[in-house]
Amino acid sequence: MARIDELASIGAIEGTKGCARLALTDADKAGRDLVVTWMRDLGLGIAIDRIGNVVATMPGFGSVAPVMTGSHIDTVGTGGRYDGNLGVLAGLEVIETVMRSGIELTRPLAVAFFTDEEGARFAPDMLGSLVYVGGMPLEEALDITDADGLVLGDELARIGYAGAAPCPGVVPHAFVELHIEQGPVLEAEGFAIGAVTGVQGISWTEVTVVGQSNHAGTTPMELRHDPGYVAARIATFVRELADDLGPPQVGTVGSLSLHPNLVNVVAARAVVAVDLRNTDDAALIHAEQRLAQFLDEVAGAEGVTISTRSLARFEPVTFDDRVVRIIHELAAAAGLTVRRMPSGAGHDAQMFARVCPTAMIFVPSEKGISHNPAEHTDVDDLEAGANLLLHTLLQLTGDELSWPSLTPR
Amino acid sequence: MARIDELASIGAIEGTKGCARLALTDADKAGRDLVVTWMRDLGLGIAIDRIGNVVATMPGFGSVAPVMTGSHIDTVGTGGRYDGNLGVLAGLEVIETVMRSGIELTRPLAVAFFTDEEGARFAPDMLGSLVYVGGMPLEEALDITDADGLVLGDELARIGYAGAAPCPGVVPHAFVELHIEQGPVLEAEGFAIGAVTGVQGISWTEVTVVGQSNHAGTTPMELRHDPGYVAARIATFVRELADDLGPPQVGTVGSLSLHPNLVNVVAARAVVAVDLRNTDDAALIHAEQRLAQFLDEVAGAEGVTISTRSLARFEPVTFDDRVVRIIHELAAAAGLTVRRMPSGAGHDAQMFARVCPTAMIFVPSEKGISHNPAEHTDVDDLEAGANLLLHTLLQLTGDELSWPSLTPR
Repeated sequence: MARIDELASIGAIEGTKGCARLALTDADKAGRDLVVTWMRDLGLGIAIDRIGNVVATMPGFGSVAPVMTGSHIDTVGTGGRYDGNLGVLAGLEVIETVMRSGIELTRPLAVAFFTDEEGARFAPDMLGSLVYVGGMPLEEALDITDADGLVLGDELARIGYAGAAPCPGVVPHAFVELHIEQGPVLEAEGFAIGAVTGVQGISWTEVTVVGQSNHAGTTPMELRHDPGYVAARIATFVRELADDLGPPQVGTVGSLSLHPNLVNVVAARAVVAVDLRNTDDAALIHAEQRLAQFLDEVAGAEGVTISTRSLARFEPVTFDDRVVRIIHELAAAAGLTVRRMPSGAGHDAQMFARVCPTAMIFVPSEKGISHNPAEHTDVDDLEAGANLLLHTLLQLTGDELSWPSLTPR
Repeated sequence: MARIDELASIGAIEGTKGCARLALTDADKAGRDLVVTWMRDLGLGIAIDRIGNVVATMPGFGSVAPVMTGSHIDTVGTGGRYDGNLGVLAGLEVIETVMRSGIELTRPLAVAFFTDEEGARFAPDMLGSLVYVGGMPLEEALDITDADGLVLGDELARIGYAGAAPCPGVVPHAFVELHIEQGPVLEAEGFAIGAVTGVQGISWTEVTVVGQSNHAGTTPMELRHDPGYVAARIATFVRELADDLGPPQVGTVGSLSLHPNLVNVVAARAVVAVDLRNTDDAALIHAEQRLAQFLDEVAGAEGVTISTRSLARFEPVTFDDRVVRIIHELAAAAGLTVRRMPSGAGHDAQMFARVCPTAMIFVPSEKGISHNPAEHTDVDDLEAGANLLLHTLLQLTGDELSWPSLTPR
């Protein structure tokens, strides 16, 4: 908790518990320097790679692949103090605890923080971990610019974190990330721990409806071709679709605009953004198909023209069930209430799922609030998560026989 | 048609058939001067009242109350050439025709144009006719300012139309206004003439929905309190309500805004404007009650807070059924297809309905377009409307016995 407090004092947002450490800013550099100092004080071997990811590994194990944990320490513009930071500092705490305890390991533990996880300054998000696992060429990543035209590679060099370690990096034996849930499920259902089974796939579709603008007083209902009505039907359909398909399907219309948007004018045009998410890609495709079918039907019935374009499409990530099971069993053995659950948000761990056995541990977020200075998790929950991370990492270092069927994903 | 073309050349919008003659501007003055010249050329007695209404009456009838027709010659900022102008110039044509034919009348015909019917420069609309019938004190009307702070009374004097005739004005024996429909019904249903039975009442309600903003990915459906969904439910309910109640009930949501209006954020707040109209006030009140009941239900079911405020509320106007019947019968006798119908928009005639037997004649509007330079009505329809106005006014001058039950409304 002392380390969390000290790191949160860098870029602190006055009058709140939150902080602002956008990737590769001076505040991010100060945060990085502090965490690297702690890593060095523990005697860990520190590797900084060419995209600025920092990996600290227990010394004395030669080239044996580590069991890795970690997360990020960059934040959104007005962020909380736990998002990302918890996973890095709990990892550090676990390693310190193991080293002090004198436990003998057959492979090392490592803790990392990855560059620009939030994507709030340089898109896409989870950039550092993406490059680490070979998902994006290094040179392409270094050329990304922010909204002011500043180049990522230049900013990385400016703050002194353009390291020498190669990308892609060393493939870990396994990867586990501890993170706040950023959603309300654990709190609402009274669980202390989420054993995270994967990350939802995301489908964003922008739907444009063009009809016939008319006088709201003089146009009989049966002569209308009303994009406003169709937009509303789409929004209610998305709710009905998610309810009908059931969890883990979610669906949201958070953006809906009418033109000209006047009280007494039947709209000429409406633009609706549909956000569909599911942990199973086949199910997500099914939901997309149901939406497309509905759009055809409602366009025909109302006599409007509907066009769509994809704003984003990410396939779901499935975590390794053996790792998820270990987390679940260790939590239950420790007397913690635990449930399996998907992550609704993206995390560095989903990149590692491409190359090694991976899963995540969630602790509750008060009211589900995140990306906001009001973000909060109780100390007891933070401690329980860190202890579970400790036991999970320990078990994974000793667990050589359970990966026979592993193939990279 | 020559007069319509000539009047439309004043304030003409280049490259279109439309014109711009906002009330009491130089263009309005030029239009007024032209029409007054025509009135004077016919030898009519011209009275300009203190709010700038101009009434031209056949001479030689002493103080016998006239059968009056008329409308307005001001336009919206980008208006058409028929809206208002048709009723004034057709009235002039009718009077010219009667005078040239040598028909002897027992009471005179009069044609008027009323100040600021559109309300596009000085609110409220139908201002001149409202003051004419005593619905607003003259001094209050003269003090109204436009968006630039210019005072109506000053502008009236500036263009030379602050007349001496008193307000309220002479109560006509009857009032009939010819106007384009400004809606699509006559064209869509293949009728040449609308015998207008009244003007719809209007109820505008602004509904504000406050819920819980959340992450669209991490918030399960059952934990949502989504103002965006509730706004969409309100919009679809308004359609269902209008369909359920049937004509003449109409209902529209043309304005709907979400906040923060982002793809991946369950909205925190939504604002929806509901436009309900009906020709029967009891029915309109019933529709308002059904809406209020629905708002209670949906707020409770979704766990959101709903507040409402009235943006506008006008009671319906019912025209005199005897005058409506005369219009209907004369149209049918002339071989014109005719239907009884309400007006969805406001007109000067609704003010006269307060003081004398009143109705309106509608001719079709192509595609229902009005308040737009593309406004169009075929010449044959204009001519049929003008001829029907002639016969209706003649019948009303001779029809002394049919008003026994008349009381001012």
